Amino acid sequence: MQLKYNDDSLVLHTDFYQLNMAETYWEDGIHNRKAVFEVFFRKLPFGNGYGVFAGLEKVIEYLQNYTFTESDIAYLRDELKFKEDFLDYLKDVKFTGTVRSMKEGELVFSNEPILRIEAPLLEAQLIETAILNIVNYQTLIATKATRIKQIIGDQVALEMGTRRAQEMDAAIWGTRSAYIGGFDATSNVRAGKMFGIPVAGTHAHAMIQAYRDEYIAFHKYAKRHKDCVFLVDTYDTLKSGVPNAIKVAKELGDKINFKGIRLDSGDLAYLSKEARKLLDQAGFKDTKIIASNDLDEDTIINLKSQGAKIDTWGIGTKLITAFDQPALGAVYKLVSIEDEKGNMVDTIKISGNPEKVSTPGLKRVYRIINKMNNKSEGDYIALDNENPQAEERLKMFHPVHVFISKFITNFEARELHHPIFEDGVLVYKSPSLQEIQGYVKENLELLWEEYKRSLMPEEYPVDLSQACWDNKMKNISEVQKKLSK
Amino acid sequence: MQLKYNDDSLVLHTDFYQLNMAETYWEDGIHNRKAVFEVFFRKLPFGNGYGVFAGLEKVIEYLQNYTFTESDIAYLRDELKFKEDFLDYLKDVKFTGTVRSMKEGELVFSNEPILRIEAPLLEAQLIETAILNIVNYQTLIATKATRIKQIIGDQVALEMGTRRAQEMDAAIWGTRSAYIGGFDATSNVRAGKMFGIPVAGTHAHAMIQAYRDEYIAFHKYAKRHKDCVFLVDTYDTLKSGVPNAIKVAKELGDKINFKGIRLDSGDLAYLSKEARKLLDQAGFKDTKIIASNDLDEDTIINLKSQGAKIDTWGIGTKLITAFDQPALGAVYKLVSIEDEKGNMVDTIKISGNPEKVSTPGLKRVYRIINKMNNKSEGDYIALDNENPQAEERLKMFHPVHVFISKFITNFEARELHHPIFEDGVLVYKSPSLQEIQGYVKENLELLWEEYKRSLMPEEYPVDLSQACWDNKMKNISEVQKKLSK
Repeated sequence: MQLKYNDDSLVLHTDFYQLNMAETYWEDGIHNRKAVFEVFFRKLPFGNGYGVFAGLEKVIEYLQNYTFTESDIAYLRDELKFKEDFLDYLKDVKFTGTVRSMKEGELVFSNEPILRIEAPLLEAQLIETAILNIVNYQTLIATKATRIKQIIGDQVALEMGTRRAQEMDAAIWGTRSAYIGGFDATSNVRAGKMFGIPVAGTHAHAMIQAYRDEYIAFHKYAKRHKDCVFLVDTYDTLKSGVPNAIKVAKELGDKINFKGIRLDSGDLAYLSKEARKLLDQAGFKDTKIIASNDLDEDTIINLKSQGAKIDTWGIGTKLITAFDQPALGAVYKLVSIEDEKGNMVDTIKISGNPEKVSTPGLKRVYRIINKMNNKSEGDYIALDNENPQAEERLKMFHPVHVFISKFITNFEARELHHPIFEDGVLVYKSPSLQEIQGYVKENLELLWEEYKRSLMPEEYPVDLSQACWDNKMKNISEVQKKLSK
Repeated sequence: MQLKYNDDSLVLHTDFYQLNMAETYWEDGIHNRKAVFEVFFRKLPFGNGYGVFAGLEKVIEYLQNYTFTESDIAYLRDELKFKEDFLDYLKDVKFTGTVRSMKEGELVFSNEPILRIEAPLLEAQLIETAILNIVNYQTLIATKATRIKQIIGDQVALEMGTRRAQEMDAAIWGTRSAYIGGFDATSNVRAGKMFGIPVAGTHAHAMIQAYRDEYIAFHKYAKRHKDCVFLVDTYDTLKSGVPNAIKVAKELGDKINFKGIRLDSGDLAYLSKEARKLLDQAGFKDTKIIASNDLDEDTIINLKSQGAKIDTWGIGTKLITAFDQPALGAVYKLVSIEDEKGNMVDTIKISGNPEKVSTPGLKRVYRIINKMNNKSEGDYIALDNENPQAEERLKMFHPVHVFISKFITNFEARELHHPIFEDGVLVYKSPSLQEIQGYVKENLELLWEEYKRSLMPEEYPVDLSQACWDNKMKNISEVQKKLSK
């Protein structure tokens, strides 16, 4: 494909209005005022009781490489008619801000700041779109994967959705998110190469068709692959596929490890039970049954409740696209900005929808862990200068129904934000993907079971500190006063 | 991010089982046998009456650059333990096949071959996953976009979904697909840079918040941007936003073009009607109203039926993720393969689900256009060596309910496949994106209205030729005979 401009940077992976606003700030000379933006979502996806944050690794890479290339400038000049003075300025823009963020694999809930970006207004504005694009998708899939993996339990979960993913980045980063959420392996070889995720796979129907004989095809496959998993549903699972697999395994004896059979269509409950009988009768009691075909957490619960004899679950479309809710609505909101005198002042967005009113001010998020049982009592959002750990007795109250409250003593207030960039310098050492996966598991241990139920979980408390709540009310009433004038 | 292996090729953007099968073919010496695969989907998305094909441009790029890099080979050797003999072979693999395909923007229906790939078995197998990944997503979005644009009609349609897209490739290629489907512009600047799509956008709530005063913010924006569209819902649309916009426009007079206002929340029907009144009363009758907020074809129909005064429609999440059905299920099926004697033999996949039984043999697709009215009578799938145009009187019959049939005379049988690669050499000159967009429009003219209704459209006929149908039945009965032995 002939491109007029090289696709050699992600700087223009942004909405056009960000550039318009950047230009306005620059023209007005306020582009270097310090601004604080927070990323958060308002509603958990899938009716789930928790979210799982992912995307930080790619956000870091994006910010580290933030430079307008020559082709970016040329395009802005030639096609979008930006003027030379502003382009001259853009040429030297880098990301010089400070970022605090949750770690990947952190459990995250509605309305709590996941990342906090403090940067010159122009920079902070330009990076919004890409950050949301990254965080929304990866967090969505990590959440979906964790949700599915909790139903699968100790059995094996395979990600195999590439062909139905929404283009290539989704396949790759979705797979990484699935691994964070507890998946054991992927079919996508490139994701294995990039991230060190284990890859898995056997053969497809096409191979049986290519030999036009299932028995011969299994033999040919086994010749080069000692660990054999045979796909048995090309013609007829119980009459042809499983018997041929058993026949080949018996003929080859010790020459192969007959690891499993794979079912990819039909009634998986019935077929797995019947196939299990045939395998057991033939003496292959350790041979596993792998199943796939539009599976998700609901079908898996159902199959399990029917006693399906499935050992390994292959999940494609429903995971990689988050089929039942394919978008997370994380937003990026200005919470504080430097004024003309150099003071930081809080900002708010009012809305007809009460849940869309933003919470002003620089904030930190704490997970309040009860030391008596090592379970979380909820999350606590405080202003930047507060220190909940110093309190003897912490009051937690519902941010809407404020009369619902409790006092906590003997707690750990674990801060969830970590320094990532300081004045543009990366100060964070990323954990390995295996560590992130382990971190999700650990974190889930902190939650009571009722928050982890896949259907109608209890609502986990995410509360504002008294100071944070008071500050929000003050800001609302100031705007209302101004509007009524 | 530190990668152990460079992400410098898309060759491993494939399922692991493709490599296992490739290795089996190579070990067995059948890797160079000629194989024919077809790409098709079984069911149109969104209950729509037609699909719009997109993805060819990226498929071409992928196939042209198909080479295992050093890092690919190193990864396969070191981590996946492929053996040196096979890796030696892979090092020199390129795509040497022949591809026939529909053009981008072609209207496409269930069960008709979109692309046909004739290549050495090993090559054809390895490229399956990436091709489906590309075609599934891009076709899905082009279809969704066309569906939405048909409701929007001659009004302006803007794509603005990047922040909710499923990672970056989806944002970029989804935008291109939206443009193919008739969208007028995008907010994504990188998509503008790459594909020459017009970009559009104004400013966001953040700018109002940054100035902490709507009136001042509008003034600042207008200073650098002569063509002004003001976002009016940061505090209160009718009490604050629209009056401030009007005030600024009046004050600045000829210094700006007060092009429009944008509504991004609240009841768009009510607010647009009231805003229209305010604008008209102030003498700004040509100022447009742009609306956005989780719009899709259904909400747009509803808003229009309520007489909403909206001129330009901004569509985000629901388009870029194809929210109501985020995956298309196109598959890649072997339909013919060279046997040990060098003859091509047809192949079939039988399934318990009758609609999943594949149609064997090399095929071509024709659109049968009635010369009397220039409307399409349906599509006609014939074997490679047939020539429907030569027939005086073409019999078209339903491929399942075969008694439903009609005879067509005075028709044009327009072949929908075009040569793309011949023996690995690109022979296709891609049209411009504007031409592709025009091609969709033209094609829609061929369809009767009843196929284009967004709710419960009539089923467009996609029929098999008698020879094609007979061949399918013959193949089914051969497999059944074999199974019954």
